[in-house]
Amino acid sequence: MSDKWKTSISSSGEDSVVRGVPREEIMDMDFADAIWLILKGEKPSEQESKIFNTILSSSIDHGVGTPSTVSARTVQSGGNDMNTSVAGGILALGDKHGGAIEDCMEVLQDEDYSPEEIVDVFIESGDKIPGLGHKVYEDVDPRAEKIFEKAEKLGISGKYVERMKSISQEFAEEKVPLVINVDGAISAVMSDLGWPSELGKGFFIIARTPGLVAHVHEEMENEDFRREDGEYTGE
Amino acid sequence: MSDKWKTSISSSGEDSVVRGVPREEIMDMDFADAIWLILKGEKPSEQESKIFNTILSSSIDHGVGTPSTVSARTVQSGGNDMNTSVAGGILALGDKHGGAIEDCMEVLQDEDYSPEEIVDVFIESGDKIPGLGHKVYEDVDPRAEKIFEKAEKLGISGKYVERMKSISQEFAEEKVPLVINVDGAISAVMSDLGWPSELGKGFFIIARTPGLVAHVHEEMENEDFRREDGEYTGE
Amino acid sequence: MSDKWKTSISSSGEDSVVRGVPREEIMDMDFADAIWLILKGEKPSEQESKIFNTILSSSIDHGVGTPSTVSARTVQSGGNDMNTSVAGGILALGDKHGGAIEDCMEVLQDEDYSPEEIVDVFIESGDKIPGLGHKVYEDVDPRAEKIFEKAEKLGISGKYVERMKSISQEFAEEKVPLVINVDGAISAVMSDLGWPSELGKGFFIIARTPGLVAHVHEEMENEDFRREDGEYTGE
Amino acid sequence: MSDKWKTSISSSGEDSVVRGVPREEIMDMDFADAIWLILKGEKPSEQESKIFNTILSSSIDHGVGTPSTVSARTVQSGGNDMNTSVAGGILALGDKHGGAIEDCMEVLQDEDYSPEEIVDVFIESGDKIPGLGHKVYEDVDPRAEKIFEKAEKLGISGKYVERMKSISQEFAEEKVPLVINVDGAISAVMSDLGWPSELGKGFFIIARTPGLVAHVHEEMENEDFRREDGEYTGE
Repeated sequence: MSDKWKTSISSSGEDSVVRGVPREEIMDMDFADAIWLILKGEKPSEQESKIFNTILSSSIDHGVGTPSTVSARTVQSGGNDMNTSVAGGILALGDKHGGAIEDCMEVLQDEDYSPEEIVDVFIESGDKIPGLGHKVYEDVDPRAEKIFEKAEKLGISGKYVERMKSISQEFAEEKVPLVINVDGAISAVMSDLGWPSELGKGFFIIARTPGLVAHVHEEMENEDFRREDGEYTGE
Repeated sequence: MSDKWKTSISSSGEDSVVRGVPREEIMDMDFADAIWLILKGEKPSEQESKIFNTILSSSIDHGVGTPSTVSARTVQSGGNDMNTSVAGGILALGDKHGGAIEDCMEVLQDEDYSPEEIVDVFIESGDKIPGLGHKVYEDVDPRAEKIFEKAEKLGISGKYVERMKSISQEFAEEKVPLVINVDGAISAVMSDLGWPSELGKGFFIIARTPGLVAHVHEEMENEDFRREDGEYTGE
Repeated sequence: MSDKWKTSISSSGEDSVVRGVPREEIMDMDFADAIWLILKGEKPSEQESKIFNTILSSSIDHGVGTPSTVSARTVQSGGNDMNTSVAGGILALGDKHGGAIEDCMEVLQDEDYSPEEIVDVFIESGDKIPGLGHKVYEDVDPRAEKIFEKAEKLGISGKYVERMKSISQEFAEEKVPLVINVDGAISAVMSDLGWPSELGKGFFIIARTPGLVAHVHEEMENEDFRREDGEYTGE
Repeated sequence: MSDKWKTSISSSGEDSVVRGVPREEIMDMDFADAIWLILKGEKPSEQESKIFNTILSSSIDHGVGTPSTVSARTVQSGGNDMNTSVAGGILALGDKHGGAIEDCMEVLQDEDYSPEEIVDVFIESGDKIPGLGHKVYEDVDPRAEKIFEKAEKLGISGKYVERMKSISQEFAEEKVPLVINVDGAISAVMSDLGWPSELGKGFFIIARTPGLVAHVHEEMENEDFRREDGEYTGE
């Protein structure tokens, strides 16, 4: 194929638009609202906008030791520019790093299974239920709590939040109590807002990119090439 | 080196912070404000927040034919996930793609040279002055105009906006009139807001990532492996 | 974790080794033999070396229209260096691009299924059997033929080559005759040489990287930023 | 632009070629010879082939602590496939990591400057001369020595090897004796063989990719997500 590339997302040049909205109107939108528009094809309501800002801001950065931060800063230390280094960080956001949101949204949105059935399937397979459990928090994950409270107050909490809580209760009854973590709260609320699970990772990438830019910028001040200690264990 | 990684950007775990601000307070911030905070180390004023939202939204996407969109969608079509494909798009944001903002901020902020001297240097070298000229707009770039007007109205227009306009006038007198384009307007205003030029590209990456996520998501609906027509011109 | 990184692959510094072999001895090895050593942990026999060179050389490049070539050259055209551009090409080598070797090795090496059972499973699912079929060659894929002949002559053709041919015959009897393509031949011979299927993609990446370097180098001569035609199909 | 992509490197389909050589003939070439052909457009002589194999094998891997290895393994640990992880490693091969060969070839091939002048320029700027000095070896770098000896014995040592040695002697006289390191030896010999400096990094990427594949494969056996210790140094 070598036909023209086609898109329903945006156009360039004079009279350019994003999802049918003229660029000058886009420039009057808050950035989070423009993100919502370009991904969903429609503008958010005021309530949707509020919770979306909360969710994006909650994931903006998480310390220097995560794989994405380490890979971004390591790539920079090899003598690279901002775009190459940030891309090196985003690459690390694979199935095990930021993937819980997508997995959790998939579980929640597959309505062929009841909460009981979901819990049974996971207990049998021995896999972790995405969205449940935290290595620090035992009773409550305060970020999850905050997202649930905001969603409730904004009147946008719906059946997927219910479903997430049922899964948690069911798991507590059948096995052991585990907190709903921040990924679980984000997944439930985003599902109630009508987002498809395939965008779970994409949304996390958008939220984390500013953090990666900040880390690469900080690393640029450090002249040194980062050589880690390594041990050869061969014979 | 294999010391602990160090950062002044954020921490993880209980009581985690971003630039000293507790995570729960971060979750009450608009996303654009959290971006400003993580990059600059302080919260924006209301005026700064408004213009920053405008600038980010203005660059969110620019049609399907740009190198970053083509590389992101091509990587996806090889059978790849969201993180790999978006990174493939960000890689393309090199010196010639989104680099004008960084270049223009550098020129503006190097106050060893007057507007006249800058114009002379560029005319002599034959290089394009970053921030000037557009292939479609001859009289005015409406996006640049909008940014300048907003900055003026918000009371944050300062010496770098003046400097950009002087460069444009000087070039018109010495050579030919060219519009100040959107990159020039962004560069001037961001400079007046105290941003260092090294973040010019980083800021563009942040603004464009949501567009890349949207394009990769759209490409995922297309099952086909993209093979382009190619011609072998060897002997 | 922040323990030292550990490896049984190689060491650095004085007396450095690769898989226990001193660096100066490595420098007397042919490159393909050194590749074999670093991946398998032992040196190849003369016969293994010959067929491995053939297999690597067969995949070195395949025209300008493949996704990996298009993404590498597109990334370069955005104003990027060799490492960034080649990485942009390798990213495109996902499940649908170069993935057939890994898939085919997996099918061949899963000896729980007979050729008949494999064919039945694929016919039922409607999926393509990896290693069979070609859009140009109907009777024989000359590259596959050449690999099979060399392997036979070198005395290293074994049970997996047999198995690949049985699958092909079985499919011809049950459905329609399809050639064993070059991926099928490589997969069968590499399996007979004791390679695990997880290295199928890695081996393809090694073989294709020189082609990507050549394409990026060629693209560097072209000053232009590549903007593709695109069409906006939104409302 | 949306014309057909054009190349003089290779074609696909029936009668496909690489640099004019039919694919079946390519399949009879050793891999290193095919690499030489695709990059230079002609086949190597027997002598050229020998030293090229030595040079490629010398750089195949260098322990687990280099930035490229750390970034490749870190990306994998985020839950990624072979192509994504290897690309993450190649990204790290920036100006400070593998870049010395390109820099050194450039210095050697710029014949506007004599060895004396080159040394003077570098002493004045305070920059390191690429190709000189090693943190372990004081008298001789055995890998460099081996490459020079081989090149001499094969009769391909020429004016650039002489130039490299003159630069080293000049620097010793003007400042302090430093060994010619392996990058210096590779750069001098590759220059004598007629390679352009722009391919210096590309050649290093080709040599190192098998090492990265081996490291990613080793990391895949490790289930754990790699979280490094980090310290927050903000107020």
